[in-house]
Amino acid sequence: MDSTKPTLLDHIEEMLAPEFGKGRVANYIPALAMVPPNKFGMALHFVDGRVMTTGDAFEPFSIQSISKLFALQFLISQVGDMVWTRVGKEPSGGTFNSQILLEQEHGVPRNPFLNAGALVLTDMLMGLNRHREDVLLNFLRALSGNKSLQVNQVVAASELEHGHVNRSLGHLLKSYGRIEADVERVIEVYCAQCAIEMSCVDLAKAALPLANRGRVAGHYGTVLTESQAKRINAVMLTCGMYDTVGSFAYRVGLPAKGGVGGGIVAVAPGKYSVAVWSPELDLSGNSYVGTAALAYLTSLTRSSIF
Amino acid sequence: MDSTKPTLLDHIEEMLAPEFGKGRVANYIPALAMVPPNKFGMALHFVDGRVMTTGDAFEPFSIQSISKLFALQFLISQVGDMVWTRVGKEPSGGTFNSQILLEQEHGVPRNPFLNAGALVLTDMLMGLNRHREDVLLNFLRALSGNKSLQVNQVVAASELEHGHVNRSLGHLLKSYGRIEADVERVIEVYCAQCAIEMSCVDLAKAALPLANRGRVAGHYGTVLTESQAKRINAVMLTCGMYDTVGSFAYRVGLPAKGGVGGGIVAVAPGKYSVAVWSPELDLSGNSYVGTAALAYLTSLTRSSIF
Amino acid sequence: MDSTKPTLLDHIEEMLAPEFGKGRVANYIPALAMVPPNKFGMALHFVDGRVMTTGDAFEPFSIQSISKLFALQFLISQVGDMVWTRVGKEPSGGTFNSQILLEQEHGVPRNPFLNAGALVLTDMLMGLNRHREDVLLNFLRALSGNKSLQVNQVVAASELEHGHVNRSLGHLLKSYGRIEADVERVIEVYCAQCAIEMSCVDLAKAALPLANRGRVAGHYGTVLTESQAKRINAVMLTCGMYDTVGSFAYRVGLPAKGGVGGGIVAVAPGKYSVAVWSPELDLSGNSYVGTAALAYLTSLTRSSIF
Amino acid sequence: MDSTKPTLLDHIEEMLAPEFGKGRVANYIPALAMVPPNKFGMALHFVDGRVMTTGDAFEPFSIQSISKLFALQFLISQVGDMVWTRVGKEPSGGTFNSQILLEQEHGVPRNPFLNAGALVLTDMLMGLNRHREDVLLNFLRALSGNKSLQVNQVVAASELEHGHVNRSLGHLLKSYGRIEADVERVIEVYCAQCAIEMSCVDLAKAALPLANRGRVAGHYGTVLTESQAKRINAVMLTCGMYDTVGSFAYRVGLPAKGGVGGGIVAVAPGKYSVAVWSPELDLSGNSYVGTAALAYLTSLTRSSIF
Repeated sequence: MDSTKPTLLDHIEEMLAPEFGKGRVANYIPALAMVPPNKFGMALHFVDGRVMTTGDAFEPFSIQSISKLFALQFLISQVGDMVWTRVGKEPSGGTFNSQILLEQEHGVPRNPFLNAGALVLTDMLMGLNRHREDVLLNFLRALSGNKSLQVNQVVAASELEHGHVNRSLGHLLKSYGRIEADVERVIEVYCAQCAIEMSCVDLAKAALPLANRGRVAGHYGTVLTESQAKRINAVMLTCGMYDTVGSFAYRVGLPAKGGVGGGIVAVAPGKYSVAVWSPELDLSGNSYVGTAALAYLTSLTRSSIF
Repeated sequence: MDSTKPTLLDHIEEMLAPEFGKGRVANYIPALAMVPPNKFGMALHFVDGRVMTTGDAFEPFSIQSISKLFALQFLISQVGDMVWTRVGKEPSGGTFNSQILLEQEHGVPRNPFLNAGALVLTDMLMGLNRHREDVLLNFLRALSGNKSLQVNQVVAASELEHGHVNRSLGHLLKSYGRIEADVERVIEVYCAQCAIEMSCVDLAKAALPLANRGRVAGHYGTVLTESQAKRINAVMLTCGMYDTVGSFAYRVGLPAKGGVGGGIVAVAPGKYSVAVWSPELDLSGNSYVGTAALAYLTSLTRSSIF
Repeated sequence: MDSTKPTLLDHIEEMLAPEFGKGRVANYIPALAMVPPNKFGMALHFVDGRVMTTGDAFEPFSIQSISKLFALQFLISQVGDMVWTRVGKEPSGGTFNSQILLEQEHGVPRNPFLNAGALVLTDMLMGLNRHREDVLLNFLRALSGNKSLQVNQVVAASELEHGHVNRSLGHLLKSYGRIEADVERVIEVYCAQCAIEMSCVDLAKAALPLANRGRVAGHYGTVLTESQAKRINAVMLTCGMYDTVGSFAYRVGLPAKGGVGGGIVAVAPGKYSVAVWSPELDLSGNSYVGTAALAYLTSLTRSSIF
Repeated sequence: MDSTKPTLLDHIEEMLAPEFGKGRVANYIPALAMVPPNKFGMALHFVDGRVMTTGDAFEPFSIQSISKLFALQFLISQVGDMVWTRVGKEPSGGTFNSQILLEQEHGVPRNPFLNAGALVLTDMLMGLNRHREDVLLNFLRALSGNKSLQVNQVVAASELEHGHVNRSLGHLLKSYGRIEADVERVIEVYCAQCAIEMSCVDLAKAALPLANRGRVAGHYGTVLTESQAKRINAVMLTCGMYDTVGSFAYRVGLPAKGGVGGGIVAVAPGKYSVAVWSPELDLSGNSYVGTAALAYLTSLTRSSIF
């Protein structure tokens, strides 16, 4: 991996200094609460293969909801538009774990990035793969080229222990017949997916096909068609950032997906994929410093899609 | 105005033949219900000044909610980000005239493209301009270079007569102190704005600054900063198409704003603005054929922003 | 009017001393905000004709939402169960002026004691009486035997000026075709009804038919059938006290209707009607001391219906 | 047990003939779906000890949600008003199993007769009794004087298998910290309680304390204070019949609690308790013929509380 033009990211990191200390590290499970708040890493992967990194870009962290993006990518690559028979693709206007819309819409989750939607995706993944639980992990190892990716079992167990809202969503989905597998098993597999650890470098590389017309980084061929890549980007932009979809598009201008581990993956179609990590979260559960970093990035490089 | 490469739009028009007859012309007011359903026009305005047209591209029609886009553009050009102190910029997840979110959020409309948001914009416009009602009309005449633009008074009167939902929203906003002017007066001015008639050619030209870093068509200088243009595009993409924001982004991939008159304006940043007109609407109130036309356009020209 | 056994009410008044100063006088219009908070009156009207009073029982105050009870009584006496084709009779689970349920239920108000329901009742009253606005006033004069009852025009004008939520409800109802008359006219008549002033003695006498199988106080015959009286009591008990219906039934155990003027009318079927007045309101808009007074009354006289 | 004046109930049964065949037997679990739709029983238990019966009044059926009434009665008798720290006592305005209000109110169920409320009661029962599951069964045996009451294990197992909505509610409650025990265990105990089988005669006797100032039938002393009995009746009237609370009070005029097994228990304070059974349900899940039977009963005996 060759690292060029470090000055851009270094410049962004300097500009971010005043942003630290304003958010709060996720504390709903102990394993996440112990992550040092001042961690910061960023990796930019251009479609021509160049990679830029700064800070803790090589340090693995909990990808959490970013896993939803790759679950969607995997399913689209396997079954195509059939995914949309089981989840919608409209923004919810609400928070990530609300049951209200789910009840109003008879158990069809509004989009794949709500927890309810991700549980349906997990159920689909399990159905496609004889309930093997490491499907997504293997997909991420292949995409990132990093065979050492692992599930953090302490985090997974802790998520499972505190996963009452997800269980509630799972059983509600089951009551509508929207989940085929055993609910508890779906929750287990979902929690394991969220507890996968990856670095910014891993994530940027894994997301590159979305920026690169479906082609994986290096010489491995395509994982999505160009049209599929574009459409996943569209769903990310309109649904990826919970209840701040509009503000994020306004400020950053890239399709993106964040997780409560403090990571955000974003895509500048035709240009680059980028991953940023800073554990302090804003009130909506997105990385506070990470969002600012991406805003500086698109502003400095004029790479907003708008 | 010079018209080149007609073949692209002609090709799209041919592909659209099977799409006619599937939607329904708006019938909540007689003046709109009488528009022939098979009307179709399209105008593409490139940032280099070239214009392509097809069909009824020069025939004026009722712009309806597309007026919201230009009201936002005018206000951003006048007061900048102060607009966002009075309306939000998040998708609503609901229909265009719902009172539910408004009540939950203490009278702050979710975004400027909901009717409630548009009423607040109208109130701001009136406040800025000593309650002169033709501010938006004059702005549109300047942007489009068409001094003959008019309000269709029959349509405006009919809207006013049937405007009970808007009055209800207006008084709810007033109860929260979100509207300064007299509610009935705001409704009148809003109905007049919706009843402005423009052709696809007019609309594409008026929207060009959004595609062209804020610069108006021809040699008239800028109406928005580059950043303002990008940000309006972001709000359009996440909030412009009512409760089909996600599907539209997925299928078309451009920031856009439609109206129940059957028009849609869309923007390919750095490339072109486009307006399409076909009066038959889908269940969400967007032009059925118009949406299909834009999907073909971005697909054939690979100009989706994703 | 002969007043016997004053000791019961005097005893209750003594017990209430610690309850004063805990609520707040309605302040959304100046005319109500100026009422002295320590006013207190109570009148008990037995079915045998005896009347007990205490405190400011003869002083007129603004009946506000208590007017809804008499509008319902008048309409039931005129058109019977046809009333229920235009309003429901289920508790709303929400506050008195919410638009949310109204939108969910296509404009049919949940019950006649919500503001939306009262506007529909007012529209029905107007339709039945050639839009004469003093129908309810005349009905109340007859029921109470007090020909000097008046609308407080200052209060009515002030309600009208601040009536944006009611206007919003009115136009929403109009949009669903649930109101026939001009909305602004309905609001005017409704505000005038709320601004009628009556004393506890007037109110207790006017409500007596509900306790007395439909028979009016004195020798004037019946105004409702026995069955109609019972049914109005049932609607009062399940819907009369806004979002504290359950707590009020639990604590007091009588059908009742309150208003933000601080009055509450309650009915012990077969025994007595009662009116109490104390302007300080709890958070739900019911009289704080008045509720306590009624709880003491049913407890001391063992007259809860449960 | 001596049975007098059969003519009243026989008369009612005759009047009910045209009401059969209009509702539908509950079919969400096979064990309930197989109950013959034309079953009908009724038992009236006067406070003076007399009992009237008709039809299948001695045949046990699944009490289902009527168990909620006795769980509340037991808890009130054990911990008094402390119950209300964990559930509310307001009507919900919605259906029995909605998650929407629960989320809006941070996990405090609106009332003890919603499924969410009943799960909290079950958790309280378990906490008070070292998690012995037969507490309610023993309470009902004592109240009814029928030591042979049993849980129908086939029904209980079937409820458990189809209990996804309840599980979803249980986990949502757990996420808010409103349930102490293991959720699955609470669901098991709750399903067992719903699957208790009792006859109309059993139920009327068990409910007698609510009509009889807290005193049990026969000579066993009191189970509730007079005030507690009244207050449970108040909660039943405002919350007992799901989303038809208002219509039921309007039509029948008694506090009542129904179950999808087709039973309804009602209370005429100071006069009698009554149980009726007919398996065909209306759209809200209440016994169709049973509701009609109670309406005839209160009308013929003039025993509405209103």
